[in-house]
Amino acid sequence: MVVRGAPAIAIAAALSLAVEVANFKDFNGTSEEAASFIELKLEYLVSSRPTAVNLSDAAKKLIEITSNAASTTIMPESVFQAYIEAAEIMLDDDVASNKAIGSYGSRFLQDQRKIVPRFSVLTHCNTGSLATAGYGTALGVIRALHAEGVLERAYCTETRPFNQGSWLTAFELVHDKIPATLIADSAAAALMKESRLSAVIVGADPVAANGDTANKIRTYSLAVCAMHHHIPFYIAASLSSIDLSLSSGEEIVIEERSSKELLHSRGGLGEQVAASGILVWNPAFDVTPAYLITGCHY
Amino acid sequence: MVVRGAPAIAIAAALSLAVEVANFKDFNGTSEEAASFIELKLEYLVSSRPTAVNLSDAAKKLIEITSNAASTTIMPESVFQAYIEAAEIMLDDDVASNKAIGSYGSRFLQDQRKIVPRFSVLTHCNTGSLATAGYGTALGVIRALHAEGVLERAYCTETRPFNQGSWLTAFELVHDKIPATLIADSAAAALMKESRLSAVIVGADPVAANGDTANKIRTYSLAVCAMHHHIPFYIAASLSSIDLSLSSGEEIVIEERSSKELLHSRGGLGEQVAASGILVWNPAFDVTPAYLITGCHY
Repeated sequence: MVVRGAPAIAIAAALSLAVEVANFKDFNGTSEEAASFIELKLEYLVSSRPTAVNLSDAAKKLIEITSNAASTTIMPESVFQAYIEAAEIMLDDDVASNKAIGSYGSRFLQDQRKIVPRFSVLTHCNTGSLATAGYGTALGVIRALHAEGVLERAYCTETRPFNQGSWLTAFELVHDKIPATLIADSAAAALMKESRLSAVIVGADPVAANGDTANKIRTYSLAVCAMHHHIPFYIAASLSSIDLSLSSGEEIVIEERSSKELLHSRGGLGEQVAASGILVWNPAFDVTPAYLITGCHY
Repeated sequence: MVVRGAPAIAIAAALSLAVEVANFKDFNGTSEEAASFIELKLEYLVSSRPTAVNLSDAAKKLIEITSNAASTTIMPESVFQAYIEAAEIMLDDDVASNKAIGSYGSRFLQDQRKIVPRFSVLTHCNTGSLATAGYGTALGVIRALHAEGVLERAYCTETRPFNQGSWLTAFELVHDKIPATLIADSAAAALMKESRLSAVIVGADPVAANGDTANKIRTYSLAVCAMHHHIPFYIAASLSSIDLSLSSGEEIVIEERSSKELLHSRGGLGEQVAASGILVWNPAFDVTPAYLITGCHY
């Protein structure tokens, strides 16, 4: 959990290997062996987070680029250089893709509800600069709405048990001077009932081929409550979050995390906050079926 | 928040005044003045928690008893004695009423779903011995199911931001050796989706005349999610939790509590768990409309 957020994990893994190969003084091998070295390293990185689709997607592309480079040169340094450039382009592309998501999302919302002058948006977990290469996906849409002067207020949930909302999203919103309010995960439905929300926008980790979307635990009940209140519920994610090998959400394996995250504050690192001896069920994600996602019905 | 839980607040207030009048050596006044003294004290106690219907209900009954006593004696001591006895009966009655709720609730569930051999029940907040005079309301039903050998498992939510679930309910469940699992408030819908629940049972604070029920924040979204999953959602409460002066939930005033409860752990008393400078909306309760409560449709 030192690097978190599916898109950020992919970029951090790609760049960390770029730093390693940039520091090679004498690689003792052919260009083909340089490409194989990179492939092995990337496969090792992918194995560390088997469900992170962005990571395996990025690794696949980078392996292809270095393999192509190896077929056109006998210099291993040229293969490493091709890898470094590809990883850097991936970083730039991720920021550009996030900005495009933000700008598209903002325009889409404004087109959908022309009579609403300003939008209040609830988001969950962290999908901002601290989860992506920069700008963010769902938080990118909030940033774009704010930049265009049409954001009334952003609401962020605490996001128990790891508090990504109250620490990271709240930090980004305060830092960017975006009008924002933190609520307990528990208060989301009460907020919807008071008609304070124009939309709920969250990220994805990952999206299955049929549109079912895994995301931080509680996303599913936010979607159920949003539908109950006729509030649109959107996923903001890049193409790399879509895993076409998963036919539906039922194939997404949900990680169950340590009971410590509920028994102690700060995701298990802090003081005790629960009675001793109680068992815990702590799924990290849940799956929101496509029929609850606005614009994803078919 | 030193004494919490609407029924426990009423009993604690009544008994604390009983201790005060039991310690009177020389009350310098008539029996009518003794009754007025008790009335003033009770009205003061009621003013400390204006929305606690159990408290004002208890005060009304106690004032009537002491007023009746004053009209039949000239001895102030006899008025005090009548008050003390009435407060003690109220304590016994509350425990008896809780046990009746438990036993009725358990029998009702077993009658409703005869084919289910064992029940798994989710509860929220704390409605047990630590919120009532003893045994509990919603937790009383869970205790009764367990005593009758038909409880598969009790699930309790953390109940952010004050953690009444992870501290108090979890403590009572572990203490009574009831098979139990703690979940983040966020994980309730995922639990429902996995078909692990037979029912959701919570307390009330208070119930309006039309059945709309205020309870700890998040109750409303539990009810919305329970309906979405066709899981019965019940309120377990005594008659004293019904406030017939409120025609619907719209008349229930929701207390907004300090932002500290979200910014620091342990309901505001512990370490910082959120980014500095973020605004907070922290409603303590929400209202679940009657149409979401099983057995309360009309």
